Amino acid sequence: MEIGIIGLGLIGGSLGLDLRSQSHKVIGVSRRAQTIERALERGVIDAGSTEFGALSSADLVVVCTPISLIVPTVKCLRDVVPPGAIITDVGSVKGRVVEPCTTLYPHFVGGHPMAGTAEQGIEAAQRDLFQGAVYAFTPVEETNPKDVEILTGLARSLGSDVMTCAPDIHDQAVAWISHLPVFVSAGLIEACGLDVDPIVLQLAQRLASSGFRDTSRVGGGNPELGMMMAQHNRTALLQSLRSYQQQIAQFIAAIEAKDWVQLQTRLAQAQKLRPDFVD
Amino acid sequence: MEIGIIGLGLIGGSLGLDLRSQSHKVIGVSRRAQTIERALERGVIDAGSTEFGALSSADLVVVCTPISLIVPTVKCLRDVVPPGAIITDVGSVKGRVVEPCTTLYPHFVGGHPMAGTAEQGIEAAQRDLFQGAVYAFTPVEETNPKDVEILTGLARSLGSDVMTCAPDIHDQAVAWISHLPVFVSAGLIEACGLDVDPIVLQLAQRLASSGFRDTSRVGGGNPELGMMMAQHNRTALLQSLRSYQQQIAQFIAAIEAKDWVQLQTRLAQAQKLRPDFVD
Repeated sequence: MEIGIIGLGLIGGSLGLDLRSQSHKVIGVSRRAQTIERALERGVIDAGSTEFGALSSADLVVVCTPISLIVPTVKCLRDVVPPGAIITDVGSVKGRVVEPCTTLYPHFVGGHPMAGTAEQGIEAAQRDLFQGAVYAFTPVEETNPKDVEILTGLARSLGSDVMTCAPDIHDQAVAWISHLPVFVSAGLIEACGLDVDPIVLQLAQRLASSGFRDTSRVGGGNPELGMMMAQHNRTALLQSLRSYQQQIAQFIAAIEAKDWVQLQTRLAQAQKLRPDFVD
Repeated sequence: MEIGIIGLGLIGGSLGLDLRSQSHKVIGVSRRAQTIERALERGVIDAGSTEFGALSSADLVVVCTPISLIVPTVKCLRDVVPPGAIITDVGSVKGRVVEPCTTLYPHFVGGHPMAGTAEQGIEAAQRDLFQGAVYAFTPVEETNPKDVEILTGLARSLGSDVMTCAPDIHDQAVAWISHLPVFVSAGLIEACGLDVDPIVLQLAQRLASSGFRDTSRVGGGNPELGMMMAQHNRTALLQSLRSYQQQIAQFIAAIEAKDWVQLQTRLAQAQKLRPDFVD
């Protein structure tokens, strides 16, 4: 296949490396000529351009731009790609993307590969990034099943575990297990960094070890990620945050009341529930 | 020195291994004869007993029992050890331990090596567990500086980074960076495990990856640890939980109001504050 990739960052670049290794022809599009140059040097793409026109013979285009640019990109692309070409995206929120994009272009299929590293940009692109990762597709009623089938085959060829679900179910699920943890974790850093007496703070900073490190990791990351989650998945995130707030309130109430039976029950429940999510 | 260790679990056992390797004579005391036997087999102790009487010629005794047993243990020990022998403990909460123990026995010095693994018990004992870890001592006005000096030398010989502070400052600091994260993290597991619509839950369980894994790790651990924190460091933990609750409420308010400037500021602040605690 001739596959276009728009946006040559970590995800777009890693896709290019894997797809080229399977003998697909990969055409990269980036706003910056320098990125195209680097992508060519690194073997991420076969050819590249700063113009969408380069995708006029693509069978499939993967939009790997920031979420806010997906809809405008599809709007331009639909007049460029051959009739019937599939367009998919890799955005981590689907509801606000899939509906307008499907209306704009009937061969659009929302996608979300759940892969990443702490690094960003073309230099971070790596082979086998999607190996073993869940790759979600979010077809809607109007979606062509054949398009989903082709994308599923391609994602499986990357070693991904493919699943399909409705866009809003996807967004609710990621709100709970991916977006909520960022705010849970950022709140911990802010409480410890801002609300603590200076003498205690100095000691706390020295004593902080693996428990604090792990619990604060995602909250101390790139603020743009948290902003994207809050702006593009606001309703689902708010629901999960309000529910979480109740859990914290219940811990406080149990400890205030010295209700140790209740507290023990809750902590044992948390221990029991966790393996349903992660090993 | 002749050094007694009461309680031969992960901490007591690991101490024994390190201290013996430095040619100290290590006498172990455990409630169970089987533990003594295993400690002898593993080379953790030179001799052992189920009776405190075995410590009648000890220069130093390290109490490695659960927190609730430290005061009763010191009460028995003071009539057994030679006059002037030092008694120290390794409990992770100090205020409720140091005051009664110092009253019971003037050569008591509170201690807290900030080391551990997920494993427990004598089988988990390992060499060099304290290497590079912070080891806090919490002397009070009545404490003999010479005793602190001896303990400091010993902790440094284990490779630990020794610091001293007041018991209540210690307890506040660990409430923030060690105890609060457990409840922050347990609340996340409970919100995701209990409050989520079944169809979403199924997907969420499949999509959960490293962000959820790290943020939920300490909350999914042994409930006894969280119970110990809540029961023995209740006031400081409640203060940190209430402050944390405010941080979460402020996130909710900013997202509800679509106050993206405020949210961006807060997330950027979290990113900036974290390296003051951990690398």
